[in-house]
Amino acid sequence: MRATTGLRERLAGYFAAERDRQLGELREFLRIESVSAHESHAQDMERAAAFVADDLRRSGLEKVEVLHGEGHPFVWAEHRPHEDRPTILIYGHYDVQPPDPLELWHSPPFTPELRDGRIYARGVSDDKGPLFVALKAIEALRATLGELPVNVRILVEGEEEIGSVHLGPVVACERERLRADLVLSADGAMWRATEPSLTLAAKGLCGLEVELRTANQDLHSGRHGGGVPNALHALVEMLASLHGPDGRVTVPGFYDRVQELTPEEKAEIAALGFDEDGYRAALGMRELYGEQGYATLERQWARPTLELNGLGGGYQGEGGKTVVPREARAKLTCRLVPDQDPEEILALVSAEIERRCPTYATVTVQPEGGLGRWYRMPPDHPVLSLAADVLEEVTGKPPVRVRMGGTEPCAELFQRELGIPTLFYSFSTSDEQYHAPNEFFRLERFDQGLMAWALLLARLAEPSADRIMEGGNV
Amino acid sequence: MRATTGLRERLAGYFAAERDRQLGELREFLRIESVSAHESHAQDMERAAAFVADDLRRSGLEKVEVLHGEGHPFVWAEHRPHEDRPTILIYGHYDVQPPDPLELWHSPPFTPELRDGRIYARGVSDDKGPLFVALKAIEALRATLGELPVNVRILVEGEEEIGSVHLGPVVACERERLRADLVLSADGAMWRATEPSLTLAAKGLCGLEVELRTANQDLHSGRHGGGVPNALHALVEMLASLHGPDGRVTVPGFYDRVQELTPEEKAEIAALGFDEDGYRAALGMRELYGEQGYATLERQWARPTLELNGLGGGYQGEGGKTVVPREARAKLTCRLVPDQDPEEILALVSAEIERRCPTYATVTVQPEGGLGRWYRMPPDHPVLSLAADVLEEVTGKPPVRVRMGGTEPCAELFQRELGIPTLFYSFSTSDEQYHAPNEFFRLERFDQGLMAWALLLARLAEPSADRIMEGGNV
Repeated sequence: MRATTGLRERLAGYFAAERDRQLGELREFLRIESVSAHESHAQDMERAAAFVADDLRRSGLEKVEVLHGEGHPFVWAEHRPHEDRPTILIYGHYDVQPPDPLELWHSPPFTPELRDGRIYARGVSDDKGPLFVALKAIEALRATLGELPVNVRILVEGEEEIGSVHLGPVVACERERLRADLVLSADGAMWRATEPSLTLAAKGLCGLEVELRTANQDLHSGRHGGGVPNALHALVEMLASLHGPDGRVTVPGFYDRVQELTPEEKAEIAALGFDEDGYRAALGMRELYGEQGYATLERQWARPTLELNGLGGGYQGEGGKTVVPREARAKLTCRLVPDQDPEEILALVSAEIERRCPTYATVTVQPEGGLGRWYRMPPDHPVLSLAADVLEEVTGKPPVRVRMGGTEPCAELFQRELGIPTLFYSFSTSDEQYHAPNEFFRLERFDQGLMAWALLLARLAEPSADRIMEGGNV
Repeated sequence: MRATTGLRERLAGYFAAERDRQLGELREFLRIESVSAHESHAQDMERAAAFVADDLRRSGLEKVEVLHGEGHPFVWAEHRPHEDRPTILIYGHYDVQPPDPLELWHSPPFTPELRDGRIYARGVSDDKGPLFVALKAIEALRATLGELPVNVRILVEGEEEIGSVHLGPVVACERERLRADLVLSADGAMWRATEPSLTLAAKGLCGLEVELRTANQDLHSGRHGGGVPNALHALVEMLASLHGPDGRVTVPGFYDRVQELTPEEKAEIAALGFDEDGYRAALGMRELYGEQGYATLERQWARPTLELNGLGGGYQGEGGKTVVPREARAKLTCRLVPDQDPEEILALVSAEIERRCPTYATVTVQPEGGLGRWYRMPPDHPVLSLAADVLEEVTGKPPVRVRMGGTEPCAELFQRELGIPTLFYSFSTSDEQYHAPNEFFRLERFDQGLMAWALLLARLAEPSADRIMEGGNV
């Protein structure tokens, strides 16, 4: 029997008694329109940062600061009552995506509404709800135990939805105040609603913009057509050539550093029993499609991709226009896996696009967006089994191990700058419409998350967690 | 010595004496904002039609009517003093293109301005200036000879810039009132400014719009990318396949009915000494490009084409968006040559696009815009040598025989409905920025046009022109 069994009952009592108050506080947090992308919300950003800081102060943490600098403020806090126990760095963000298009929301985005066991509001799933869960777990531990079982440091940013523009510099400058053994991230999401999951890897990312020109003006297709180059013809020819009939990217060197899935990894993915046909049908697709020789989850989690995100040129309005367009544009991104290097892939793809541009056209290729490195959690890291135990205890189901096709730059950043891994420990679910209208958060996962955060922080203080510190740098 | 030599001197005297008044009238015509595309200009359309009708009445024509029906009014007139002479149907249009973008005009589009031997105004080259030339030639002939040398019928429409939507029905219904031996069109344009030209052929046209779908929503490229179809990938693959590396259209059957150029036709085109490199440089192109085995003018005048006019899909705004787009669109048109049938080509291309759509996508293909049939003037038609003589006499240079890559639906319509050919006899030049800001008309060609119209109408009355009537239907 676990040493925390008694704790679990006490926590359950606390959360039951405090639930209405806590949900009321969450609604207050959700009403703050902390849209980081819009300058008009600068005041709201301050209010949201103050909300987080005040909450941590009320929980009695030793040090709580709102850090002002360039960009939106960071909240930093520290509470280290135990010299001989691990320090956990808790990460989350208080900013949210813009709520547009407003007309698609069934209730106003900044007026939280409870419906059918869900809270609807912008940012409730990404990341205010999951972040609030972490804050309330800390509150509960101090209230029930009198003290936190482990040391914590906390970093909450307000720029995650605009690319975490100042996170890198802040982590680099504040290395000392952020030293820890492990990061627990309140950001991220469970893979699906039916069981808990632990995310072991995320992909890297690089993007570029292509602009192609053939003439100094659009030309009338009657007068000139047939005798002059057409920028759209050049574009489709060049872009179509980037994939082979087997769905593979044809850029030389693209796969050179890719680590093939091991038979064990393939078996682990296959064991998830992913319902490919249900997935296909839910998205209204005739067929799934991707690199030949791989299952859908393998393609999404462990194979690099090159995707066209947008393209355009010529006349796109109502009706027709008999024009030979002079220019065309495309945006594309690559999702990368170990050990691909985003800078190298960007260079390879750019050079190949330049090489394949028909001689009658000129092309410019420019990087678009930042570079993101792939991230991988060591699969035998002791926090994984601790978290798995907690998740099974709280939800009744053992978590599945999954990967992420998206990018988690903060995990890669913490690994690189602080030398420690990140466990994604968010209790949102990937279907909760984040970045879209009608974002929601499941109340069931809110309740599970409170208990799971509190229990994991307690387990990290147990002797069996010592290995956490062995590899750490405190 | 021509019987019209004396006439030429009398006409020259008339045009010199009346030039200021005539130019003043033209400016009045140009000030009317007869933009057929915009409903707000309905009153202006009436004013422009009345301007044309009043002018013809002042010239003393027997019958002048403004025909009201659906759409913008037609002006019809008739003057047939000679039972034994040919009847010439004169065609032109009083409507103009919208003037946008206004900020690119150096003088306001509806405030005609004389600069450097040119009149600048919207519609001055297409087609108010050339139409006015025909009107003033009629006026001059009646003033100097007391009567027109031939019979004329006149049809002026106000919908040419919006696809001549009611011209077909009107010609079909008014066949009797439009019977003639030949059409002289005041629309069209000389090939270049350096010498006069006679246009012997125009291409046909058909267009279509392609819409391709892969899913019921745009998908996040991190979560889904690599495992789901991307509508942009499908689009570029399908569109790129429509041309081979030799620049030929790969749709089966596309070239089946194409009449190859004869060695004589190729020699005639080569004799024009078209400056390919100067043309390339003027348009800022690195290379000219088209179907292998043909010169530029051959490609533009005598080879069928399939051109992408526009395409788009996914995110096209500032910056990037990591989306797997669910749909993509393209617009394309084919320019057709004898004996291609626009309906057949439309069906062939549509079916082939449907056939080539990847199985993971669905595609809809719809016709866009009307079908235009190619037109060809019989190369030995007697009016061609009469006009060539007149043009050489008036300009000092023999005209070159050219073709048009564009479509002239009215010529094909007159041929089909009235059984008579159309001679394009406009004195605008193809570089005069019609359909663009700063449209202009060369005063030199205005003066040449007045004389050339008057002389050609006189020559058509001479015994040598009898063959005009032989093939006619009056």
